[in-house]
Amino acid sequence: MKFGLFHSVQLPNPTEQERYYREALEQVLHAERLGYHSVWFTEHHFTRHGIVSATLSLLAYLAALTNTIRLGTAVTVLPFHNPVQLAEQTATVDLLSQGRLDLGVGRGYQWGEFHRMNIPMHEATRRFEESMQILTRAWTSPHPFDHRGEFWSFNDLTIQPKPVQRPHPPVYVAASGPDSVARVIRNRWNLLIGQGETFPQVANQIEHYKNALAQANHPSSPPAQAPPPPSPNAESEANCAPQQIVLARAMHAAPTTQQAQREAEIPFMWFKQTGQEVSAPPGQRLDLLPDEYADYRRRYAPGAAFDYPAMCENVTLFGSPAQITDRIARLQENGIQNIIFFVNFGGIEHQKVLDSLTLFAAEVMPHFTPKPTAPANAK
Amino acid sequence: MKFGLFHSVQLPNPTEQERYYREALEQVLHAERLGYHSVWFTEHHFTRHGIVSATLSLLAYLAALTNTIRLGTAVTVLPFHNPVQLAEQTATVDLLSQGRLDLGVGRGYQWGEFHRMNIPMHEATRRFEESMQILTRAWTSPHPFDHRGEFWSFNDLTIQPKPVQRPHPPVYVAASGPDSVARVIRNRWNLLIGQGETFPQVANQIEHYKNALAQANHPSSPPAQAPPPPSPNAESEANCAPQQIVLARAMHAAPTTQQAQREAEIPFMWFKQTGQEVSAPPGQRLDLLPDEYADYRRRYAPGAAFDYPAMCENVTLFGSPAQITDRIARLQENGIQNIIFFVNFGGIEHQKVLDSLTLFAAEVMPHFTPKPTAPANAK
Repeated sequence: MKFGLFHSVQLPNPTEQERYYREALEQVLHAERLGYHSVWFTEHHFTRHGIVSATLSLLAYLAALTNTIRLGTAVTVLPFHNPVQLAEQTATVDLLSQGRLDLGVGRGYQWGEFHRMNIPMHEATRRFEESMQILTRAWTSPHPFDHRGEFWSFNDLTIQPKPVQRPHPPVYVAASGPDSVARVIRNRWNLLIGQGETFPQVANQIEHYKNALAQANHPSSPPAQAPPPPSPNAESEANCAPQQIVLARAMHAAPTTQQAQREAEIPFMWFKQTGQEVSAPPGQRLDLLPDEYADYRRRYAPGAAFDYPAMCENVTLFGSPAQITDRIARLQENGIQNIIFFVNFGGIEHQKVLDSLTLFAAEVMPHFTPKPTAPANAK
Repeated sequence: MKFGLFHSVQLPNPTEQERYYREALEQVLHAERLGYHSVWFTEHHFTRHGIVSATLSLLAYLAALTNTIRLGTAVTVLPFHNPVQLAEQTATVDLLSQGRLDLGVGRGYQWGEFHRMNIPMHEATRRFEESMQILTRAWTSPHPFDHRGEFWSFNDLTIQPKPVQRPHPPVYVAASGPDSVARVIRNRWNLLIGQGETFPQVANQIEHYKNALAQANHPSSPPAQAPPPPSPNAESEANCAPQQIVLARAMHAAPTTQQAQREAEIPFMWFKQTGQEVSAPPGQRLDLLPDEYADYRRRYAPGAAFDYPAMCENVTLFGSPAQITDRIARLQENGIQNIIFFVNFGGIEHQKVLDSLTLFAAEVMPHFTPKPTAPANAK
């Protein structure tokens, strides 16, 4: 079982961007020291919901300060990037980190980001597809190539530098419907499951994915759908590692479940509400969020926007080590082997995040770490 | 007098990108320890002439490893970038480096880069202008703004994070003709003088710049040309520092001038020839460069492509400490106070670069470092 961070920087207090960045980075270094396996940074633009916009630059910074932790994006919004420059940036981070880059990619979902970038949201899927194709070819093609697409054209292309992982850094994609799962399997991408799905939804998604994977790998099976267009990277990826699943989950550990849920409540609700605000077109916004975080805390009314107890039951890992251990054991039974924790939400106090990571590493991790020589040590 | 690095990574041997990156980065750390003031990385794409393509990611990496050295680009090619993402990336590096970013910008000059990016080269100047305008507004505007331009449209724009330098990171622009110098002065940008100009050209360029600056600052003077359109950042920059000049120069120091010039010759000619190759359309290329650097060294014929002795006389600083000191003293008389050295060219041996930087710091720097309490110590 692997544990990592699904990490972001938000801006509850508008004047404190430096502090929020510094604390988030310290949390990563703390996590590496405690043996966490990976950190995956979000990409957001233009609002206080997420102020990591140049995600690959931030990972380059972390590449210099870390040695073992893998460095991921979750996710890079492909429609917003020039795919050639994205290929260059990812190759650079892969090189600087000595092969520690994982690239989560998505098509984007926030109305406000598309509007501000002036990119029609209905193009998101087609832009995703075309960019993914260019990105993969740019990483892997041994020869210069031309690209003529709907959104991009390039000539005689070959990037410098090259990624150091072969055939390229692992790609992770969120997918839930049958078509998108089939596409993930077909392209040998890895599966990313977001933090918003409930536990039963997670279990269903994994079961569906595994069934589809088994069917695709069964030589006598008919294809699950009409034959897909050939993937440009199918050949070069034929020998790469088995496909992985990564699950994102909000997590906060404290000595008691009550304390954990109390500490997480207001910060997590700030995060959820800003997320709702930035995802929706103007007419559908709630204007719930004052500029000052202190005002938000003062005015916070439980249940006004989200059913927090239901979230604690069905979605998040806010609890005591024993409660979290129990929940992760059930996820493990569902087939999850890699969970990344969203721990730095909505202005939660830095020290509480450090303590939570420490407590999890001390009290939960050992249950899931193979200890072949002394299994009795596990609680 | 300030001394820095004008730095790049090239790929003489196609299989050794990791080593070239590692050595170039070690040279930066060495330079910081020796008291060099800045490092400015180039941006190139697609060829072995320069394999730093994600320049701001590389500077983010260096931000984590350095404390005092300023981190610059020389130059970021504006026509190749989405200006909003460039604003985000530069703000991120500025934040991560605690305000050490200097942004050199240019419109690009390599035929091959424009061709591969599929951007018409004749649009370069207009793309530069529009991007610079968006970049400056994105950095500085206190309110969201719309942009409707020839190449870009954005709505309701405000970036996250913000740069920490106020009003924004210093901007450096190469300019030589009267119009471009006037534009630099008008926008309160700083002046960057490339490494290719001869010493007499440098002197002329500075004199022209200073005259234009004096004229522009003289309240009773008529404007040097028709009144420019108002700069969107004119107000916010009204109180910023006096405009600076940075001069780039190839430099290699060794105990004797003969040794310095001998050590630099083949590597520097490889660099010059690759530069010529990548700048020109296919029909004008010379095909001088074999894949293997060893072949290049074997086949090198002095004078075949460039007049190296003339370059040593008129353009570069390849020499003994005494010879370089003398040359810099003359540049200082011309008004230069900030020189950045191109030291890592064409596969020159890493240890020779380190030795050259050390020798320069020990034997040349002291002549130009103010020592108010003990001036007699200067040689």
